[in-house]
Amino acid sequence: MEVTIALDAMGGDNAPIPEVIGAVEAKRNFGVNTLLVGDEKRLEKELSHLGAKGLLPIIHADEVVTMEDSAMSPIRKKKRSSLRIAAEAIKRGDASALVSAGNTGAVMATAKLVIGGIPEVERPALAIWIAKSNSFSLLLDVGANSDCKPIHLEHFAIMGSVYASYVLSIEKPRVALLSIGTEEAKGNDLTKEAFKILSSSNLNFVGNAEGHDLFKDVADVIVTDGFTGNVVLKAGEAIYEFIGDTLKKEFRSSLRTKLGYLLSKPVFEKMKRKLDYAEFGGAFLLGVKAVTIICHGKSKPRAIMNALKMARDIAVSGTNEKISSEIKEIMEKNSNGKLESKDFGNGKVSS
Amino acid sequence: MEVTIALDAMGGDNAPIPEVIGAVEAKRNFGVNTLLVGDEKRLEKELSHLGAKGLLPIIHADEVVTMEDSAMSPIRKKKRSSLRIAAEAIKRGDASALVSAGNTGAVMATAKLVIGGIPEVERPALAIWIAKSNSFSLLLDVGANSDCKPIHLEHFAIMGSVYASYVLSIEKPRVALLSIGTEEAKGNDLTKEAFKILSSSNLNFVGNAEGHDLFKDVADVIVTDGFTGNVVLKAGEAIYEFIGDTLKKEFRSSLRTKLGYLLSKPVFEKMKRKLDYAEFGGAFLLGVKAVTIICHGKSKPRAIMNALKMARDIAVSGTNEKISSEIKEIMEKNSNGKLESKDFGNGKVSS
Repeated sequence: MEVTIALDAMGGDNAPIPEVIGAVEAKRNFGVNTLLVGDEKRLEKELSHLGAKGLLPIIHADEVVTMEDSAMSPIRKKKRSSLRIAAEAIKRGDASALVSAGNTGAVMATAKLVIGGIPEVERPALAIWIAKSNSFSLLLDVGANSDCKPIHLEHFAIMGSVYASYVLSIEKPRVALLSIGTEEAKGNDLTKEAFKILSSSNLNFVGNAEGHDLFKDVADVIVTDGFTGNVVLKAGEAIYEFIGDTLKKEFRSSLRTKLGYLLSKPVFEKMKRKLDYAEFGGAFLLGVKAVTIICHGKSKPRAIMNALKMARDIAVSGTNEKISSEIKEIMEKNSNGKLESKDFGNGKVSS
Repeated sequence: MEVTIALDAMGGDNAPIPEVIGAVEAKRNFGVNTLLVGDEKRLEKELSHLGAKGLLPIIHADEVVTMEDSAMSPIRKKKRSSLRIAAEAIKRGDASALVSAGNTGAVMATAKLVIGGIPEVERPALAIWIAKSNSFSLLLDVGANSDCKPIHLEHFAIMGSVYASYVLSIEKPRVALLSIGTEEAKGNDLTKEAFKILSSSNLNFVGNAEGHDLFKDVADVIVTDGFTGNVVLKAGEAIYEFIGDTLKKEFRSSLRTKLGYLLSKPVFEKMKRKLDYAEFGGAFLLGVKAVTIICHGKSKPRAIMNALKMARDIAVSGTNEKISSEIKEIMEKNSNGKLESKDFGNGKVSS
């Protein structure tokens, strides 16, 4: 299947250079077809610099959503932004997936409201891969939904399970619920209710995982609400940076430790690669009709390239179709499913 | 003021040895009066080993609450446990503060139900100090309340502010609310409501802090619900361990890096000391009538000694009295205070 990925080429902190290089590399290395969306003249200039004039199609967009803009800006104000126009191209059928290194809130809102959610899914969720000693676990939601109902967590679990099954080549990925104790009775009202639902599901539910299990091999998919997930994700990045900064300072304190650092460099470089987001490309917004990958604002070309390849691979894998059918199946099996969802009312979209 | 600290001498993983050594050291180094509660014969034997026969009083208790027991065990079943009997000694007035390295849930439940909460405080909260580059911030609640209402967060903020003011010698500590964006409109329903309450309070409220702000100098006190706080705390410990384990493995991989490690050792040791819980003694359960310090189950004598000194110092500082009077003042000033609290109903005690 030939698919085209719409790239918001103006979204990242250093756009459009890393975007154009990443897209050209994705084409050259993996044959990924990218549709570049952004300032036509600048994009053409960058392509020329790379000796890639005409290699990738361009759609012009003269506005840019910045990190300071509100999540709703591409919906209400910046309708000619590269992000909005990339989403419109997908809606028209000119592309099948979206990649952006722009404002996360704005990408999520645009994906949900312009491209639209998978009808069976109550709420899209943002998923990231976190490192453990021998492999990776998928953590979701890390910020799409600040307030969740139990059924949302069930849908996150199903979506995560389908996606992890594809990426890790495991038939029934182990799914855990992030909580504050391993027993069913531990947790808050949300997780206690979600525990019951997940226990009676067809998922390979292994129970609660605690904060200290996040980097251990207890599960392949770890489900949480978007508030907790976002706090944990950012706290994790911060601890890593804090340890790095403190070590750097201490290493500089004497000749002995300076020499120690030089000899230890391969160790730190390996550690950095292990935790480097660039290897993964970005976070996956599960539950949107078209595959949507959100990259770090500081993404380098390598991260963009990997994100474009990831978007293409997921699009052709049929992950979204499988999510639809699995949730539909559950709704049909469990006649309370839809009722329950209505009872909880419509939650708010985090903005 | 002469105060006595009741020590649950049987609570920790290696009890009673670290407990007895810690208590003897606290007496010898800082003049802290500890009442040892536990198996009389074993405690007398350990005191003799240290040449400290008769140095500290003992109350006999023939049961022990284990890490596997439920939080309610000392209330419902193990009424002759060292934990329960230590709390009873405080209730009778024979001691003014509690220190335990036992089952955290059981210590919290026993403190709340046997010693009792400060009447003005809606809910006690567990607080820990977290490292930042030049100092420390107080994070609470890290696990006493799995579901919180906005007024609980307000009380956590007041308690944390009073306590941090004493420890850090700052008149008006900066208080932040842990959330998923710095703007008022970001967060979940709980933090958005708490933001409004804190903004109109007399506290030095500096707004929202995100996960990545936890190790930066943005605030002296960071307030969150006990579910999020507990997940973040445990995830933080896990990342630190994960980085440590990965580095250890990599350092062993070649002669060059082995030598690098030997030269770098002072750096890692300094890092470890910086993040070592033993320096702080333990977590402080704020909002209980008597100062209650909960130590890590693996606490070494140094951690127990520091916890006993910390308990004595907080008890004589008048922190609890100041918490009562500050909350009373707010309740009187804001006639909605108590009403609002009733509206929210009684939350559940995490067990």
